Amino acid sequence: MPETTLGELAVLLDAVLENGDPKRTVSGINSLLEAGPTEVAFLANALYRPQLAATAAGAVIVHANADAGESTAALLRTDNPNFAFAKAGEFLSPPEPIPPPGIHPTAVVSPSARLGDGVSIGPWVFVGDDAVIGDRTVLFPNVHVGRASALGADCVLHPGAVVDRGVVIGDRCVLYPGAVVGADGFGYAWTGKGYYKIRHSGTVELGDEVEIGCNACVHRGRFGVTRIGRGTKIDALVIVAHNVKMGENCVIAGQAGIAGSAEIGDDVKMGGQTGVGGHLRVGSNLAFGGQTGVTKSIPDGEAGAGEYDRLWIGYPAMPYREQVRRIRDVKTIGVLRKRLRDLEERLKRLEERGGDGG
Amino acid sequence: MPETTLGELAVLLDAVLENGDPKRTVSGINSLLEAGPTEVAFLANALYRPQLAATAAGAVIVHANADAGESTAALLRTDNPNFAFAKAGEFLSPPEPIPPPGIHPTAVVSPSARLGDGVSIGPWVFVGDDAVIGDRTVLFPNVHVGRASALGADCVLHPGAVVDRGVVIGDRCVLYPGAVVGADGFGYAWTGKGYYKIRHSGTVELGDEVEIGCNACVHRGRFGVTRIGRGTKIDALVIVAHNVKMGENCVIAGQAGIAGSAEIGDDVKMGGQTGVGGHLRVGSNLAFGGQTGVTKSIPDGEAGAGEYDRLWIGYPAMPYREQVRRIRDVKTIGVLRKRLRDLEERLKRLEERGGDGG
Amino acid sequence: MPETTLGELAVLLDAVLENGDPKRTVSGINSLLEAGPTEVAFLANALYRPQLAATAAGAVIVHANADAGESTAALLRTDNPNFAFAKAGEFLSPPEPIPPPGIHPTAVVSPSARLGDGVSIGPWVFVGDDAVIGDRTVLFPNVHVGRASALGADCVLHPGAVVDRGVVIGDRCVLYPGAVVGADGFGYAWTGKGYYKIRHSGTVELGDEVEIGCNACVHRGRFGVTRIGRGTKIDALVIVAHNVKMGENCVIAGQAGIAGSAEIGDDVKMGGQTGVGGHLRVGSNLAFGGQTGVTKSIPDGEAGAGEYDRLWIGYPAMPYREQVRRIRDVKTIGVLRKRLRDLEERLKRLEERGGDGG
Repeated sequence: MPETTLGELAVLLDAVLENGDPKRTVSGINSLLEAGPTEVAFLANALYRPQLAATAAGAVIVHANADAGESTAALLRTDNPNFAFAKAGEFLSPPEPIPPPGIHPTAVVSPSARLGDGVSIGPWVFVGDDAVIGDRTVLFPNVHVGRASALGADCVLHPGAVVDRGVVIGDRCVLYPGAVVGADGFGYAWTGKGYYKIRHSGTVELGDEVEIGCNACVHRGRFGVTRIGRGTKIDALVIVAHNVKMGENCVIAGQAGIAGSAEIGDDVKMGGQTGVGGHLRVGSNLAFGGQTGVTKSIPDGEAGAGEYDRLWIGYPAMPYREQVRRIRDVKTIGVLRKRLRDLEERLKRLEERGGDGG
Repeated sequence: MPETTLGELAVLLDAVLENGDPKRTVSGINSLLEAGPTEVAFLANALYRPQLAATAAGAVIVHANADAGESTAALLRTDNPNFAFAKAGEFLSPPEPIPPPGIHPTAVVSPSARLGDGVSIGPWVFVGDDAVIGDRTVLFPNVHVGRASALGADCVLHPGAVVDRGVVIGDRCVLYPGAVVGADGFGYAWTGKGYYKIRHSGTVELGDEVEIGCNACVHRGRFGVTRIGRGTKIDALVIVAHNVKMGENCVIAGQAGIAGSAEIGDDVKMGGQTGVGGHLRVGSNLAFGGQTGVTKSIPDGEAGAGEYDRLWIGYPAMPYREQVRRIRDVKTIGVLRKRLRDLEERLKRLEERGGDGG
Repeated sequence: MPETTLGELAVLLDAVLENGDPKRTVSGINSLLEAGPTEVAFLANALYRPQLAATAAGAVIVHANADAGESTAALLRTDNPNFAFAKAGEFLSPPEPIPPPGIHPTAVVSPSARLGDGVSIGPWVFVGDDAVIGDRTVLFPNVHVGRASALGADCVLHPGAVVDRGVVIGDRCVLYPGAVVGADGFGYAWTGKGYYKIRHSGTVELGDEVEIGCNACVHRGRFGVTRIGRGTKIDALVIVAHNVKMGENCVIAGQAGIAGSAEIGDDVKMGGQTGVGGHLRVGSNLAFGGQTGVTKSIPDGEAGAGEYDRLWIGYPAMPYREQVRRIRDVKTIGVLRKRLRDLEERLKRLEERGGDGG
């Protein structure tokens, strides 16, 4: 198990050590509640602040401006606790062994495929005709790379991932187990007697550093391309349908679904189970809560706007504050009904008195 | 790349060429915005009508009655632009090569399995005892066909698709990568101490021309059958649970879920992420918007009714117009509250005046 | 086909035969509507009670206190019809043949893996270094067991299931086709330039008798563990995200999603497509309807409470009765508006009269 001192760790993380012994040894990471004196914890979510006072961690990575309250823990202050903790995790946990370069004898690799240097191809991997595999890319067991697809360098395709024909994947991409990139979109033409399957002559292009989660599906274009921009991360069981264009640095959580021909800008965050209707345009710099149902196009979020000013939630999707008001309003209907009944009774009495007096 | 002339294409598509040179050569398809002079585009969705005037396409497939406005593009008029464009795509894009017939030496095929003529079995395909594979059916790498399952003719099972034991699949069916047909349903009996797994002795039957999307799951019946009717298309990541009976020519979009023992009629369209509760009966000739939550049985849609008269949306699912009214009503609650407050003040003044006068 | 008499079946099921000939032979199970005289049906859901009078079943398993109405069918009365019917199904349907022990010659099993007695390893199964496979565990074709993972005894991993590195799985667990246990969670740190993939040094622990459905995904902890307690059943296409802690005997239906670091108690039932937000705490003894969106932590359900007192539904999730009231209230808005308009008119008349009289 790797280990280091708090002093060394502060240097590695570009952090300021406060209230701690720079010579103390740490050898792992853990949560605030579970960490012991040889482990480093972190505080990035205000939800966990109460745990800071109680932690037994050897040190806690916190924001440069964090209020440590009555905590006596050693602190490592940094501008980006989440990133610093990720780096600490790399220093303090053993790296996953990478499969060695080479082609497993059970793999079936077309003679016309072109393999880069240091490629690792595991058991029962299929690489089709004219496929290209970039340098140092790792294909785990049961991976399928279809005819004429091109993978960049330093990609990792986990067990059972499927890349269909003619797909283009950038450098440093990751496909998790069971991810399917480039299967035909869900497109049929009604003939009057039944649905006729439309040949999908389009393809998929993934930019550099795109990740596609377990059993997630990115469909090829009916014609033209389904595109996911550089740095965008897609979680498990997401669908990106045919001809979607998604920008850079988006983060799409599990089970979200983007219907056909929708366009998504850059820097868009989607909570789990969010759905975006077909042919819609979702701008850049937006966020969506879990289970949001986007039924209309939405313009870009303002660059300088606060988190809640760029957040849409609910079905049909509305800006956060508007949807919250709507939810609260619904809770008041019973009270409105009572006030109405009271008014009706009082008015009746007035009318009767008016009638008496008339 | 295949190519043809507009004149020939008009004949092939049974379309009328208008405003174009029948000798002009075209060699591909593309969208209105992206098509160049050698490409054919189409207009089937009114959303894209504004692009018609601006297109540089060599020809545009439109409806026989479409208003071309100020467009000067060559038009191919037809009663079914979507289908015609699908056919154009076949004429103008090279067909996907079909794996040749034969059994890959790495496949494991039971001696008791019966294989039709021209079957293609790829690497690492498993075909269990007593399984039947119809003529010309193609099994891509890593496909699994369990014991005693029977696949029809001209089916295609894409990489990693799994057919469990005793499943019956019709002719011309397609299973996309990772689709699972015939795994046990989600059925357990509470014993007082824990959940007891129920043996699922039922099966799955898929009619002819059924398609099951990537990583979608069709569970076998607890007993009896889970059935999907002829021509029904199921998108990626859909669940069709145990003992569901689904009719013909349904179109079920991605991530929809049909719970156990539900019945779905014919010609039902479901938007993505729609859910149908267990044991419900959904009639024929209905449509559901994305994320609809069906909590009650719904009778057949009227055959001649307009699109919006057969459409249900929202949670809990309601007819389209009713749900839209409800959504609009909620937006008015704040205004109702103001009117109520105004009434209360005016009534109070009247009452006080009445009191003064009393 | 196995067969037995009603008399023997009553003994086997610890049921009381009523209105039937103990010597009558039965040889299968079916639904009330479809069962014939040699088949046993059951009635566990009140929805199907009307079918009891019409059934042709050889016998019907019903609750000890069930009102059989005018039915003349033979009844098998028991305290737990669902469980009794499950057992009847086992007596009356042939067991699924279990793959024989042994290692298929195409499997790749690390020399450092430790295999228990009677293990069955099918074609193209990968078992990594230092992995442990418990006694009698069955690995179907294309299963992947990563480095240093440990599976208990009597587990079944169906075709294409993936267990990533270092995962711990209890005894008698089932992974259905395409299930993925132990892939990295969806965790990235924003660096100011892009998202940095966080190394996931945590793991997954599944208790005894846990089942994970087709293509469902259980992600490993960022650090620490993602845990699912003994006896919990997870349906197809569910996500259990990184660092989730789920208790015992939960039943989570298809396409539900539990976001990162959420905690779920014991005996929790979730309907399909339910979502639970990250870092929330959902107590024990609760139930959630389909498509429920849990946006806040929820305390334990009361142990003795009725079904509807522990049930939450809708978005945002509310107790059943409260959400139903809210849905009904929304339907009354139009009526409230009319009453308000009527009041406004009457008040105006009164005011005018008051003005006249003033």
